[in-house]
Amino acid sequence: MTASLTKCKSVLITGSSRGIGLQLLKQLAKSTDRPATIIATARNPTGSKELQELSNTCPGVYTVTLDTDSQQSISSALKEVQSIVGSKGLNCLINNAAINISTDIDTVTPEAMMKTFQTNSVAPLFVTKAFLPLLQTAAGQSTGMGMHRAAVINISSILGSITYTRGEGANFKSYAYRISKAALNMVTRCLAADLGSHGILCMALHPGWVKTDMGGPLAELTVEDSVSGLLTVLSNLTDNDHGEFKDYRGNNIPW
Amino acid sequence: MTASLTKCKSVLITGSSRGIGLQLLKQLAKSTDRPATIIATARNPTGSKELQELSNTCPGVYTVTLDTDSQQSISSALKEVQSIVGSKGLNCLINNAAINISTDIDTVTPEAMMKTFQTNSVAPLFVTKAFLPLLQTAAGQSTGMGMHRAAVINISSILGSITYTRGEGANFKSYAYRISKAALNMVTRCLAADLGSHGILCMALHPGWVKTDMGGPLAELTVEDSVSGLLTVLSNLTDNDHGEFKDYRGNNIPW
Ligand SMILES: NC(=O)c1ccc[n+]([C@@H]2O[C@H](COP(=O)([O-])OP(=O)(O)OC[C@H]3O[C@@H](n4cnc5c(N)ncnc54)[C@H](OP(=O)(O)O)[C@@H]3O)[C@@H](O)[C@H]2O)c1
Ligand SMILES: NC(=O)c1ccc[n+]([C@@H]2O[C@H](COP(=O)([O-])OP(=O)(O)OC[C@H]3O[C@@H](n4cnc5c(N)ncnc54)[C@H](OP(=O)(O)O)[C@@H]3O)[C@@H](O)[C@H]2O)c1
Repeated sequence: MTASLTKCKSVLITGSSRGIGLQLLKQLAKSTDRPATIIATARNPTGSKELQELSNTCPGVYTVTLDTDSQQSISSALKEVQSIVGSKGLNCLINNAAINISTDIDTVTPEAMMKTFQTNSVAPLFVTKAFLPLLQTAAGQSTGMGMHRAAVINISSILGSITYTRGEGANFKSYAYRISKAALNMVTRCLAADLGSHGILCMALHPGWVKTDMGGPLAELTVEDSVSGLLTVLSNLTDNDHGEFKDYRGNNIPW
Repeated sequence: MTASLTKCKSVLITGSSRGIGLQLLKQLAKSTDRPATIIATARNPTGSKELQELSNTCPGVYTVTLDTDSQQSISSALKEVQSIVGSKGLNCLINNAAINISTDIDTVTPEAMMKTFQTNSVAPLFVTKAFLPLLQTAAGQSTGMGMHRAAVINISSILGSITYTRGEGANFKSYAYRISKAALNMVTRCLAADLGSHGILCMALHPGWVKTDMGGPLAELTVEDSVSGLLTVLSNLTDNDHGEFKDYRGNNIPW
């Protein structure tokens, strides 16, 4: 399904070298009613052939280097993005970049916990803080809430649902990852509490279990189906979604 | 109210130099039906006069140096505790030590996030992992679930409730702390999923808003009232409490 995102002028995606980030970029770029400006960021954009091809062939697709773990890289990216979006600001920031180190109770280490927390929870907060002036600029030019105004979309995971650690959910042993995504959900809600009054919608989105490097070949969903769902959810966002945790079908997930 | 913890032979508390940890120690040590062995740990036990006095005057109170942030300190403490509890193992580990750096959206830094996550979320996991053999030894000597067998009690906070970031709860701006306690709640649930079948109860406990160095003088509760509540909750634990998040009155808190 093609999402209608015409009123959203600009989107920035982190981690768009492969997986869900790259697919979000592809489907957005090829949609007929797409945001005019799509900013594909990656820590090493030249390392991704597909990303290079897309930005060379699709008008309005810009590639910007952004290692979300590096405050210096965030600052440089901000300057580049500022000159791309100009006075219109940025309508939507999608914090998608993440890592998943396999860690059960026996194998988890403090280092794996810290590294995963840095990339999956801390980085989205500081990327958001850096791009806040651009989001505020965009928010100042509209009313209501949604992609047409300003939004921070944190790609979380159902594995970050504390509720879902029981029953079937208890089978997924992944300490560092689960803990980082629960933390990201709290990041999302703290941001929601602070940014809602500025007209910036903040939410957490679970893409489903997806066949990517992270999700593995046994995953339930193709990356196309996951991203179609995500884009449909994004194009229908309203103030009811502010501070919520939803999946790619638009269903709420309990914390 | 005096809690009945006679069937619990041993308790270990982290961060018992002051605040709630010290008060837990005091009320446990002075109770008539108390655990025979109470292990008060602190990163600098000689720095706390009250802790020194208690361990000098109360039989069965042992002081052990434990900086929960240091894997080396955890290993040394484990050896000492092993020789104190011997073949009976350890019935209850209370992960109480924590820090709270004041951080709102403007003042939060990556360093504050990482440091708080280390002490409040990572350390309780690795202290628990280290003491697991002692908890398992104790669990092997009883049936059922509760303080008489084996328990990991993580002192969390209602500020770690993701649900509670709305309405009144939105007023408490404390990014690093809130995020670390949400992460600790996920630690608790991951441990609950893995340790329940070993007869080790795991739960998160909110002590209320308490007049300590952390809670400040405007807090609602005296440290005596908070700890009386906590000890009553602890003495009544059953398998129904496994994996739950409760406050000092025994009420459930939503994730
Ligand atoms: N796949 C699933 O089943 C699933 C399920 C639930 C949630 N999710 C979430 O969905 C999002 C995307 O996952 P995916 O399946 O597409 O994962 P993936 O295939 O492993 O791709 C991860 C992406 O994140 C990037 N990245 C990692 N660290 C980065 C950093 N410091 N700076 C910039 N980019 C960084 C990677 O870049 P490089 O190419 O440079 O490494 C890559 O582009 C993640 O947030 C993930 O947690 C996935
Ligand atoms: N007070 C409240 O209103 C409130 C509300 C909700 C939850 N809590 C939770 O209740 C628990 C106790 O808080 P509190 O009010 O008693 O705080 P507090 O008065 O600030 O005392 C904190 C204790 O933790 C210790 N500690 C910190 N880092 C440590 C480390 N790396 N290794 C060993 N010990 C360490 C401190 O030791 P030093 O003396 O060496 O610094 C001190 O004994 C915490 O988990 C806190 O988050 C408190």
